[in-house]
Amino acid sequence: MKERLLTGDRVTGKLHLGHYIGSLKNRVTLQDQYDSFVFLADIQALTTHFEQPDLIRSHAHEIMLDYLAAGINPEHTTLYIQSMIPEIAELTILFSMFVTVNSLRHNPTVKAESKSGSLDEMYYGFLGYPVSQAADITICKATLIPVGEDQLPHLELTRRIVRRFNELYRPIFTEPQALLGESPRLIGTDGEAKMSKSLGNAIHLDSSTEEIRQRIKRAKTDPARIHAHDPGHPDICPIYSYHLAFASVAAAAEIREGCQNGTMGCVACKGQITNVLEQLISPMREQRALYAAKPKLIHDILMSGTERVRGIAQETMKEVRDAMSLNYF
Amino acid sequence: MKERLLTGDRVTGKLHLGHYIGSLKNRVTLQDQYDSFVFLADIQALTTHFEQPDLIRSHAHEIMLDYLAAGINPEHTTLYIQSMIPEIAELTILFSMFVTVNSLRHNPTVKAESKSGSLDEMYYGFLGYPVSQAADITICKATLIPVGEDQLPHLELTRRIVRRFNELYRPIFTEPQALLGESPRLIGTDGEAKMSKSLGNAIHLDSSTEEIRQRIKRAKTDPARIHAHDPGHPDICPIYSYHLAFASVAAAAEIREGCQNGTMGCVACKGQITNVLEQLISPMREQRALYAAKPKLIHDILMSGTERVRGIAQETMKEVRDAMSLNYF
Ligand code: SF4
Ligand code: SF4
Repeated sequence: MKERLLTGDRVTGKLHLGHYIGSLKNRVTLQDQYDSFVFLADIQALTTHFEQPDLIRSHAHEIMLDYLAAGINPEHTTLYIQSMIPEIAELTILFSMFVTVNSLRHNPTVKAESKSGSLDEMYYGFLGYPVSQAADITICKATLIPVGEDQLPHLELTRRIVRRFNELYRPIFTEPQALLGESPRLIGTDGEAKMSKSLGNAIHLDSSTEEIRQRIKRAKTDPARIHAHDPGHPDICPIYSYHLAFASVAAAAEIREGCQNGTMGCVACKGQITNVLEQLISPMREQRALYAAKPKLIHDILMSGTERVRGIAQETMKEVRDAMSLNYF
Repeated sequence: MKERLLTGDRVTGKLHLGHYIGSLKNRVTLQDQYDSFVFLADIQALTTHFEQPDLIRSHAHEIMLDYLAAGINPEHTTLYIQSMIPEIAELTILFSMFVTVNSLRHNPTVKAESKSGSLDEMYYGFLGYPVSQAADITICKATLIPVGEDQLPHLELTRRIVRRFNELYRPIFTEPQALLGESPRLIGTDGEAKMSKSLGNAIHLDSSTEEIRQRIKRAKTDPARIHAHDPGHPDICPIYSYHLAFASVAAAAEIREGCQNGTMGCVACKGQITNVLEQLISPMREQRALYAAKPKLIHDILMSGTERVRGIAQETMKEVRDAMSLNYF
């Protein structure tokens, strides 16, 4: 039996190149090797977007298209929606009994993502989302979680919850392991540390040829290059980082050299990366159009994935209920 | 259609006279008038007793016997178990998105029941139990909640959650109303303010004749009464409070006078209340024995009540999902 690998995306916006290079590409590669689960985290999206449920709903559809366009294969990856697995809510409630507020508020991601930083003003559901993540993982008995360094504290909390549950009741869960990828964080076209929809510095996976061109055209470059022949500093330039992430090693090395010795102009450099990105996104665009024309197929993929996960989740909850004497009938 | 009235008991110990006079008696009276729901709050019990799930399980059985012995009629009252209604967990998670930590930590009951008083050391589930109470009430669309004064802040939080939900999504819930009973709080046999199993100062509804006699015999009385003819102070005597709660008004008045003018001795006074309590509990004891001999019947009562509530809960969740665009299939 293949090991179960699980990832998900908060349904707060369609996916961009940062998601692709940070995790989606990796999921596509890993999906043959593992029993892969990918879910639309719409409940987690509600922790910050509870005022916009319709937005979440429409993003769920867009992200499904992003997945399928990028090469997630429903034959190899079980795609499902978090909110349609009520067992996750049940397990979250049970886990929450033995997790202290302390261990949640000091979680670096909770801390960082909390706008005010004040525990009091935090929403209760937001404070608890690492508990719900523990339930996401364990309800599927997933044991392998591809994460970036920044998500390690979350996974460590899941591991602690698993240990505690096993010790309090019955050892039915396995501690999940992190699959630390290179998963570089893509900087934004404005040079900001993170590509992000809300910053308007992202190139989305559904971009048209013209949108790619425009975003790259307006992207920041090394400000020291006033004249075409000024020597540049590729390491501080978003465009170079895209060459590194998406072009061949040889091509990126050539750009680096040309920029540094002033033989490569920014316009030409941008032209090159525009082509590279167009080559990456163009087949996605085609796939996307095929799937977008078949809403029934999307619906069926999601429903069959969700059904599979519900089956697994119900088995898990049966074990949990037996272990906790909550099995009345 | 009758209005829905809802109450529950934390499944942390069998019931005693304090529960009887504080709520059970009232529930028996009200059950013909309303569509009554009474539930075993085993999930809420886990917020403090997560280390003892087997204890909760055995208490659930005892409390069912207490209910039936005291006159709860399964034909008029829907009896069910909280943990067997997964929809409560789902709704709790959804409500938790828009409830701040602040509104929970300042809830007087959460504050009072928190041993340390420190928010950090509190368990996340414990902090959130008023949210789960809101889900208990709304999942059944209950609109009438018999409560004591001390529980009003909880109900007020439920009302706020209902208003917020209706305003954010769609007005599908009615704000529940408090049914403020006299529900006096019974003091313990040791004179402590509250009869409580953990203080060992309670008279349980399943007490034998001998147990009643012993508990009353050892109960505190007015310490000023050293000699039988010393004038007493009934208002500070637990025994007098039991006369007030369980004897006729006339009988209690007679005790009061006799105690104050020194003509009633404590031994005789205790003898009288022992008889009164025996008359109250003796028929319960018989009923209890009848039901205890029929575990299958208890099981069926609980199962059919739980099934009814699941039906209602599923309808409610359908409305909630429609309102929040969480209705994918
Ligand atoms: S040549 Fe390319 S890498 Fe160098 S600054 Fe211009 S855009 Fe950036
Ligand atoms: S006579 Fe009765 S009421 Fe008065 S102190 Fe004794 S036990 Fe209490």
